[in-house]
Amino acid sequence: MAASSVSDSATFQQATLPNGLRIAAEIVPAAYTAAFGYFVRSGARDETDLESGLSHFLEHMVFKGTARRTAAEVNRELDELGGQSNAYTSEEQTVYYGTVLPKYQHRKVELLTDLMRPTLLDADFQTERMVILEEIAKYEDQPPFGAFERSMESRYGLSGLGRRVLGTTESIEAMTPELMRAYFEQRYQPSNMVLAASGNVDFDALVQQATELTADWPTLPVPSKLLYPAPERSPGPLEPLSTKPVDNALAYVVRHANAPNALSDDRIAMRLLSTILGDDGSSRLFWELIDTGRAEAAATWTQEFLDSGLMFLYLSCAPEDVDSNLRLIDEVLERVRRDGVEKDELERAIRKTTAAAIMQSERPGSRLFSVGANWLTRNEYVGLDEIIARYEAVSVDSIQQLIQNYSMETITEVRS
Amino acid sequence: MAASSVSDSATFQQATLPNGLRIAAEIVPAAYTAAFGYFVRSGARDETDLESGLSHFLEHMVFKGTARRTAAEVNRELDELGGQSNAYTSEEQTVYYGTVLPKYQHRKVELLTDLMRPTLLDADFQTERMVILEEIAKYEDQPPFGAFERSMESRYGLSGLGRRVLGTTESIEAMTPELMRAYFEQRYQPSNMVLAASGNVDFDALVQQATELTADWPTLPVPSKLLYPAPERSPGPLEPLSTKPVDNALAYVVRHANAPNALSDDRIAMRLLSTILGDDGSSRLFWELIDTGRAEAAATWTQEFLDSGLMFLYLSCAPEDVDSNLRLIDEVLERVRRDGVEKDELERAIRKTTAAAIMQSERPGSRLFSVGANWLTRNEYVGLDEIIARYEAVSVDSIQQLIQNYSMETITEVRS
Repeated sequence: MAASSVSDSATFQQATLPNGLRIAAEIVPAAYTAAFGYFVRSGARDETDLESGLSHFLEHMVFKGTARRTAAEVNRELDELGGQSNAYTSEEQTVYYGTVLPKYQHRKVELLTDLMRPTLLDADFQTERMVILEEIAKYEDQPPFGAFERSMESRYGLSGLGRRVLGTTESIEAMTPELMRAYFEQRYQPSNMVLAASGNVDFDALVQQATELTADWPTLPVPSKLLYPAPERSPGPLEPLSTKPVDNALAYVVRHANAPNALSDDRIAMRLLSTILGDDGSSRLFWELIDTGRAEAAATWTQEFLDSGLMFLYLSCAPEDVDSNLRLIDEVLERVRRDGVEKDELERAIRKTTAAAIMQSERPGSRLFSVGANWLTRNEYVGLDEIIARYEAVSVDSIQQLIQNYSMETITEVRS
Repeated sequence: MAASSVSDSATFQQATLPNGLRIAAEIVPAAYTAAFGYFVRSGARDETDLESGLSHFLEHMVFKGTARRTAAEVNRELDELGGQSNAYTSEEQTVYYGTVLPKYQHRKVELLTDLMRPTLLDADFQTERMVILEEIAKYEDQPPFGAFERSMESRYGLSGLGRRVLGTTESIEAMTPELMRAYFEQRYQPSNMVLAASGNVDFDALVQQATELTADWPTLPVPSKLLYPAPERSPGPLEPLSTKPVDNALAYVVRHANAPNALSDDRIAMRLLSTILGDDGSSRLFWELIDTGRAEAAATWTQEFLDSGLMFLYLSCAPEDVDSNLRLIDEVLERVRRDGVEKDELERAIRKTTAAAIMQSERPGSRLFSVGANWLTRNEYVGLDEIIARYEAVSVDSIQQLIQNYSMETITEVRS
């Protein structure tokens, strides 16, 4: 079977440096490329009110220069090494990554590691603040007009997981370079980061280089506890942050139901259930609402945080069809609660999901995210064979059990 | 070197069936996946006035059902086999493609081949016409508001390469199923198509299956001459097709210069020159206009047609900055005409381009387009080693020579 041969050729290696930096690599010697990334446990949920939007703002500032490189030099080198290089910030992580030819491993790791010690100059801070403010304004102008953010606020409150990744106009306007530097010192500790690698990687060289380059990084203790743990339940009716009133051609609805968190074994079965219900290919919602032309979009997916999980439901359709479409969605959910799923559709979902996993494995640049995030979150390595085995172990009965534990009742709803 | 080992593991095989269907495959036994696609020499340039938009409309209809499958069955099977499946239409080609696990080769080829004989029912035609009309309206509402189409009309006139891929509201409204069926009979001849494959492919099985499945396809002669060859020069000042007046926050400019066509060996050097001038990484235009904040976008790229080639220049910026930015662009072009390019920047461009080629090769789904399009256009196979060698053979002197042959003077300009 193709799947076995894929995993057979991959080995996992890991190390922890004296300063606490963890290194995790999935090594596939036959790969044409090597991917590297710093995964930092720093995201919107780690911010205080004053710091709202800081993790993301800091991600921008990381590309503005280091003690050794100007912003222009950073840009030119990233470009010259070829391949995609980029970064993103979420509720729980900030990730900097790139893929290169194996011969550029040393240069790429040197560059990425240097970026992790940005100069954070006042002048750059002021310039970049304008970019962030524009990004916030632009985002608020686009459908579904902040509905996802408001749904998170409604579920988790205004702090922790309810914090907006971009921050707010107010928090970004009030932010200072001093606050950013203090936050950086705290969150970008080696013990709060993973250096992940995948593909055609020279692991010994990687460890040696990282050891040398990060030897003088200061090591302060990082609070291991979450600043704002997710509340069990929504904190109650909230005044949503203001969003611009818009005259929508389409209406948007975002709903949440409870789902397993990132540490729960149930998350695999929940992903399959969500695929059966509402992925954008051939799911129950697709046939009920998209294929029939009733809605522009009708989808479900799961999101797993450290201490909480959600199943999202997203609907976009003509405003006059919202109520009838929500009734149809409720019926779809009711049917699955009552009758469970069919063996056939579960097998199709497993086939589709595992095929996608195998296809993604073809690129070290895709595998990197799994390797890095798993090591950062769980100190766990999950190879492709294991991923496939976990999906294939899900049965009609385990879905039935899951539905008893997670009722898929709507716990928040936002309309836009 | 990684590059050699990549190509060493790939072999090329081809066959032509008695009915004229050509099959071309780049086989990499170690790949996790296999990609397949039908490349049809059918595009906007092959359409008459009445047929404008027909190739693209037909691409939509191909997914609406065959003698063996309803549209829903097509959809469900594409989804079930996993991987990306899709299609696109350009001026010269319509392509249907998908990537699957090797074990699904037989099912995928059967499905794709069946799709190539769509039923083209009247009722589906009427429904899909509305979808196309919406697509045209939506496209015209989006920046840069048809500027690329108008630039093509300005360069090539309203027929041939100047034909809009989507067609016009008028042509789509007037179109009939009979016209589509006649066009389909003519263009979807086996001798006008290539079945391409790449990755972990069983070539013998592929040829045998294709032979059986296409044995009863009618074979009519396909005109080998282009219906509307590209005129040497722009046909003169044209009345551009109407586009909606818009109140733009940003202004858009599209310019053309002459460039090598798809059969010219000079096209490789021209791509590198265009990368140096205006790719979106670290090019001369990037540093002059983007890094300085003068423009939102300022880029160049080449497009190669069978009998004509273009270098596009694209600028988007605040309306009041258009003139000063165009002056800066003219200076950038003038400098390169006078002084050529530097060895350093040429080497960087080669490095970046070949690295990207190697990285793309990691996925059979990416290589498919190169294999299929090269075979359809030139009956030529170009392996990765050869691609790299061609780029590496370009010198500062050959760029100098190129600039003498292609002056990069603006031959059309459209503002939006």
